[in-house]
Amino acid sequence: MQALPGFRDFLPEDCAKRSYIFMRWREVARRYGFVEWEGPPLELTELYRKKSGEEIVHQLFNFIDKGEREVALRPELTPTLARVAAAHEREFKKPLKWFSIGQFFRYEKQQRGRLREHFQLNCDIVGEADLAADIELLALCIDVLREFGFTANDFVVRISDREFWTDFLREKGVAADQWDEILQAIDKLGREPREKTAEKLGNLAEHIFATLKNGGESEKLSKILNALRVRGLADFVAIDIGIVRGLAYYTGIVFEVFDRAGKFRAIAGGGRYDNLIGQLSDGAVSLPALGFAMGDVVLGELINEAPHAREAIEQAIASDRKIDIYVVIAKEERRADALGQIQELRDRGYRIDYPLTQTKVARQFETAEDLGAHVALLYGDEWPQVKIKNMATAQQELVPHDHLLAHLQAQPSLSS
Amino acid sequence: MQALPGFRDFLPEDCAKRSYIFMRWREVARRYGFVEWEGPPLELTELYRKKSGEEIVHQLFNFIDKGEREVALRPELTPTLARVAAAHEREFKKPLKWFSIGQFFRYEKQQRGRLREHFQLNCDIVGEADLAADIELLALCIDVLREFGFTANDFVVRISDREFWTDFLREKGVAADQWDEILQAIDKLGREPREKTAEKLGNLAEHIFATLKNGGESEKLSKILNALRVRGLADFVAIDIGIVRGLAYYTGIVFEVFDRAGKFRAIAGGGRYDNLIGQLSDGAVSLPALGFAMGDVVLGELINEAPHAREAIEQAIASDRKIDIYVVIAKEERRADALGQIQELRDRGYRIDYPLTQTKVARQFETAEDLGAHVALLYGDEWPQVKIKNMATAQQELVPHDHLLAHLQAQPSLSS
Repeated sequence: MQALPGFRDFLPEDCAKRSYIFMRWREVARRYGFVEWEGPPLELTELYRKKSGEEIVHQLFNFIDKGEREVALRPELTPTLARVAAAHEREFKKPLKWFSIGQFFRYEKQQRGRLREHFQLNCDIVGEADLAADIELLALCIDVLREFGFTANDFVVRISDREFWTDFLREKGVAADQWDEILQAIDKLGREPREKTAEKLGNLAEHIFATLKNGGESEKLSKILNALRVRGLADFVAIDIGIVRGLAYYTGIVFEVFDRAGKFRAIAGGGRYDNLIGQLSDGAVSLPALGFAMGDVVLGELINEAPHAREAIEQAIASDRKIDIYVVIAKEERRADALGQIQELRDRGYRIDYPLTQTKVARQFETAEDLGAHVALLYGDEWPQVKIKNMATAQQELVPHDHLLAHLQAQPSLSS
Repeated sequence: MQALPGFRDFLPEDCAKRSYIFMRWREVARRYGFVEWEGPPLELTELYRKKSGEEIVHQLFNFIDKGEREVALRPELTPTLARVAAAHEREFKKPLKWFSIGQFFRYEKQQRGRLREHFQLNCDIVGEADLAADIELLALCIDVLREFGFTANDFVVRISDREFWTDFLREKGVAADQWDEILQAIDKLGREPREKTAEKLGNLAEHIFATLKNGGESEKLSKILNALRVRGLADFVAIDIGIVRGLAYYTGIVFEVFDRAGKFRAIAGGGRYDNLIGQLSDGAVSLPALGFAMGDVVLGELINEAPHAREAIEQAIASDRKIDIYVVIAKEERRADALGQIQELRDRGYRIDYPLTQTKVARQFETAEDLGAHVALLYGDEWPQVKIKNMATAQQELVPHDHLLAHLQAQPSLSS
């Protein structure tokens, strides 16, 4: 039996990689004063239908539960955030700056490298309409990637303004109920043949293609560039009005992050969705909001490609796996003495392993090395003294067992 | 709209509590040389049916996915572990010592305090038949709870030996195919009227009741007690042959952890399941194994009841939420200067917040206090100097902006 198609088992090394990514995500979000929260992985299907329309249901792991409820494994966090923010609106000072790390599910067509689950960092700011919030969010997104060792040569944040297009369409006299369709066609450019897009855009096609070619500007976009320049982050961004994000609910600044080489799908994406909380709460609560999500799969691929990022993660994994002390039991008569001391040392926080059953001494030292132990403690003929072997230098010394703890605590490399 | 019944939203404070529990779980498991892994939350229903029979399906969130597969949200980790251990058996040295922290789901009848999801720590040892592994696992389970500040006055690990009962039944000439039923009747004692149990036990009833009253012994149980005494952990355990664990797959030592006051359901439970991996892999791989699971819900209730444990978690949460620096922007003309320095300081790892929009200075200092900032930096008329206010002592000093970083890094309380 295997895991379901599109689902991953995280063996220890994969799990350590995942933990490393989560740790970095958490660290940077906290530096920005974001606090962690989390929603349930199962929600009413209606929550997603209400936000994204019936079409989303085709991509869901959805079902009827034993209480006759239509439920779905969550495909994204934003509807849950809107639900929670609306329900607890009065309990928190605005703006909320919340982040979350969790697993999300989509019933995607099986394709190489396409999974049906992934983990996402979600960072959202709720209750602030000012552009300063958009800038703060962009800086956070950039810094999260910088934290992995990526530079401006590795990735770029492409920033756009949905209002640039809605202004454009209004000016051209296009009816508002056609905007979504046109924006989605622009979004799909590059993934669809140009003729197909041209057909969808109708008599606006030529004008839109020219606009995309010449690039667009807006006061907001200039302000963002200036503000990121002040922070020394201008090299990480580019204005690209071709980015509109497919989803209908974005209302202002939107952005997507890509690797510079253009090898992968988007690493992250987000934007402002000022009307969504109002819409999902049936108008009960109206709060401007914005956020982004970054997935672990594309990020993981990017880390594998970038030598400096990869080295950092491999070092972290290696040191994470290491134990402090391996206890070699050279004489079975000393097992009880050894176990008493192991307990004492673990109580002080040391990571310790030992052979559960009688094992050849040479084999025990091999295991000590495999596990990356800093020192081996040998319990044998020397008792009531214990032999300490520094695994790096192979230096050995004898210490009376009742001085062992003090002796080890004096070793700076054995921090516990 | 609310979360589904039995599902929790983790608002920031709840999330911090959860993170604290996870951190402690992780820390102690690592001290025992356990490494972290994780499985998917969705599996083939067959995996659970194969282990626990058709009855389990009534308790599952199970459904047919869009690929016509019978799938279920996992109710427990052991079947996934068996699947993964069997599939990767040759890649790892035995014994495996693996732990995992994840969410599990059961469609429980709605009752006060009964949830439909919870988080569990699972710790398993795979590939070691010796009793030393059982002892190591018990010591780990005890130390996990000690780590939260609990003492032998707070909880007790009730240990039993399934073989005590199978020996007993064999001696009484009971056919092996009736053992499960009798063991389950013993397991339910205390939750069912005595007459009902007596009826199930038939002519063995009197003898079994007497045995339970007088207590049982086994060589294995004595060895365990001795070994835990050597480790100084004897006060945390009691032999209780009334513990058999309902599940049919346990084969040897089994245990359950309860609060001493007897107010809550079991805090943790586990035991040896030597045949399960063989059974789930259709005999492809045979590996002795044992493990335990500890849930976050009962543990959380217990923490709330025990003042010392509760104080520890509250301290951890308060310090986790704290930021290092709040930047007060007293003059909007200084905003750009402040933001440049905020970026620099965040790059050094400091947790920093500031007002996204123009805000009264008094209000900013209030926020600095709310967020638990160690220092506030004031950007205003003093520029190019920055005023540093120690939030605890209210002491203030002026520092040239280009000396700010060095000045802050020299403050030991502001470790970053």
